[in-house]
Amino acid sequence: MIDLAEKVLKGDVRAIARAISWIENNRPEKENLIDALFPHCGNAQVWGITGPPGAGKSTLLDKIIEIERRKQKKVAVIAVDPSSPFSGGAILGDRLRMQSHATDEGVFIRSMASRGHLGGVAQATSDAIKVLDAAGFDLIAIETIGVGQTEIEVVGLSDIVLLVLVPGLGDEIQAMKAGVMEIGDIFIVNKKDRDGALKLRAEIEYVLGIQFADYPEKMKPIVMTAASMNEGIEELLTVTDDYFLKISMNRSLQDKRKTRLKSEIRQIFTQKVSAHVKQKYDFENRLDEWVDAVYKKKKRPYSLINEKINLFLRECNWL
Amino acid sequence: MIDLAEKVLKGDVRAIARAISWIENNRPEKENLIDALFPHCGNAQVWGITGPPGAGKSTLLDKIIEIERRKQKKVAVIAVDPSSPFSGGAILGDRLRMQSHATDEGVFIRSMASRGHLGGVAQATSDAIKVLDAAGFDLIAIETIGVGQTEIEVVGLSDIVLLVLVPGLGDEIQAMKAGVMEIGDIFIVNKKDRDGALKLRAEIEYVLGIQFADYPEKMKPIVMTAASMNEGIEELLTVTDDYFLKISMNRSLQDKRKTRLKSEIRQIFTQKVSAHVKQKYDFENRLDEWVDAVYKKKKRPYSLINEKINLFLRECNWL
Repeated sequence: MIDLAEKVLKGDVRAIARAISWIENNRPEKENLIDALFPHCGNAQVWGITGPPGAGKSTLLDKIIEIERRKQKKVAVIAVDPSSPFSGGAILGDRLRMQSHATDEGVFIRSMASRGHLGGVAQATSDAIKVLDAAGFDLIAIETIGVGQTEIEVVGLSDIVLLVLVPGLGDEIQAMKAGVMEIGDIFIVNKKDRDGALKLRAEIEYVLGIQFADYPEKMKPIVMTAASMNEGIEELLTVTDDYFLKISMNRSLQDKRKTRLKSEIRQIFTQKVSAHVKQKYDFENRLDEWVDAVYKKKKRPYSLINEKINLFLRECNWL
Repeated sequence: MIDLAEKVLKGDVRAIARAISWIENNRPEKENLIDALFPHCGNAQVWGITGPPGAGKSTLLDKIIEIERRKQKKVAVIAVDPSSPFSGGAILGDRLRMQSHATDEGVFIRSMASRGHLGGVAQATSDAIKVLDAAGFDLIAIETIGVGQTEIEVVGLSDIVLLVLVPGLGDEIQAMKAGVMEIGDIFIVNKKDRDGALKLRAEIEYVLGIQFADYPEKMKPIVMTAASMNEGIEELLTVTDDYFLKISMNRSLQDKRKTRLKSEIRQIFTQKVSAHVKQKYDFENRLDEWVDAVYKKKKRPYSLINEKINLFLRECNWL
């Protein structure tokens, strides 16, 4: 384990891949691994990138990687597998892999599936970020499609959220649900050469304008790009740099990271207590009896549960 | 509360709507309400209907409702809001409402959002099903788009899952992820007049054929429909009737419902214990201190959590 941590710290790509597999498979050794890496974390910028399928997120990220590599920066991408099985087409990670970075040791690309993880994909992604951060990646981009419960959690792991939109996908702004505009820190109108790009920008400005009417200084930046033509990318990176500078100076970056750490510790603690309670209380064996009583309508669900909870608390001397 | 339960049992639409609002808002009174209704549950068929946007689920359900209403059956629809904010367009419930059933007292349509629920949308939907079941609805259809973590849970609440597919959305079968084919009990190829419908059917048959090579008697039915032309709907209903007869006879329906009840009781119990533990342990107040220690790198995350868990267990005299 210590060996693996040492190799990760040296940036060994195979060690990194193995560490992330440990996390994905929830192997018990992962705890010591993460603890060994933890003191070396905190240097990477974590970006969340989200937007509808077809918005051009992969092309955009491809161009960003190109520029960052020229500056000798190491970039990692975690593509969180879209929760919809009907989305069609390869996910970002796969598409990026097919592009120009496959043989570049300074670029690490990994997909993580959004189900089947004990403790959830957000927990696994959070630990994967720590591995990549400790391994010396300067930029870690987490990409999701859509903003469901899982995706909101995943996007919540990042320091900055880029929301990529594109004209011509329908009534974009109208179709967006409450909460989506809020998660974006920087808005990108990609495919800016298309009809409707300016209209889309105006719509975003309008919605944000209402939201920040009383705090114009908090107005979120909107950047127009045409990723496939390599237009607007430098401007976007200037905007993200400014944004990072701002949130570092006013300490909101630190607050964000601390809040993230808090919800992480809360979740792990709760999970572990819950596992102990279930084991101690011989829960699964008792459960069958309870279900039987409810199924046969000898008991009602909530009254049975409340009765059992009271018994349990009495056994713990808590009542 | 007892009044509300009595009104729900009489099928009073406003009382039903109010009861579901209690559930959505997680009001404490909902527990007694559900317990009062519970003895009257178990008569409704619960259908899960899922498939990609544009597959024609709402038209299909519209036609099914028409036929069921002619047989004097009461139908309820719970549309679980798609988790993607980028899906565009009205969700099923809204579209159905705009159609012919708006004034029909025997049809109840309700959307439930897929986030923001304490305890999750699956728990809320499960309780809403109990309300509708007790209110005398014969068929309760739960519609979801996509099969993410939340949707899988929601679809898991139903007795039978109809998976609606349609030719021409790309490489349908290839694009489906592992797990999707498994959740469908009956496959529907809608828009069967379109090019590619027979090919799609053949692809589904091929995939299912491999899956059930050793158990051909378990092969899942595939039904071809053209909902907008009212074709294949009667055949579909014959297939679902046969399916229900089969799963009732071989008791797999009872097993399914019991398993559902079990995971429900497990989840509620765990949630309640967890809430008690947090309160008893004054968790939130201690948490800030822990986060501070980890954030300042005086402690490492997992070792801190494990240390605190051990302390906690000792306080409970469990160690």
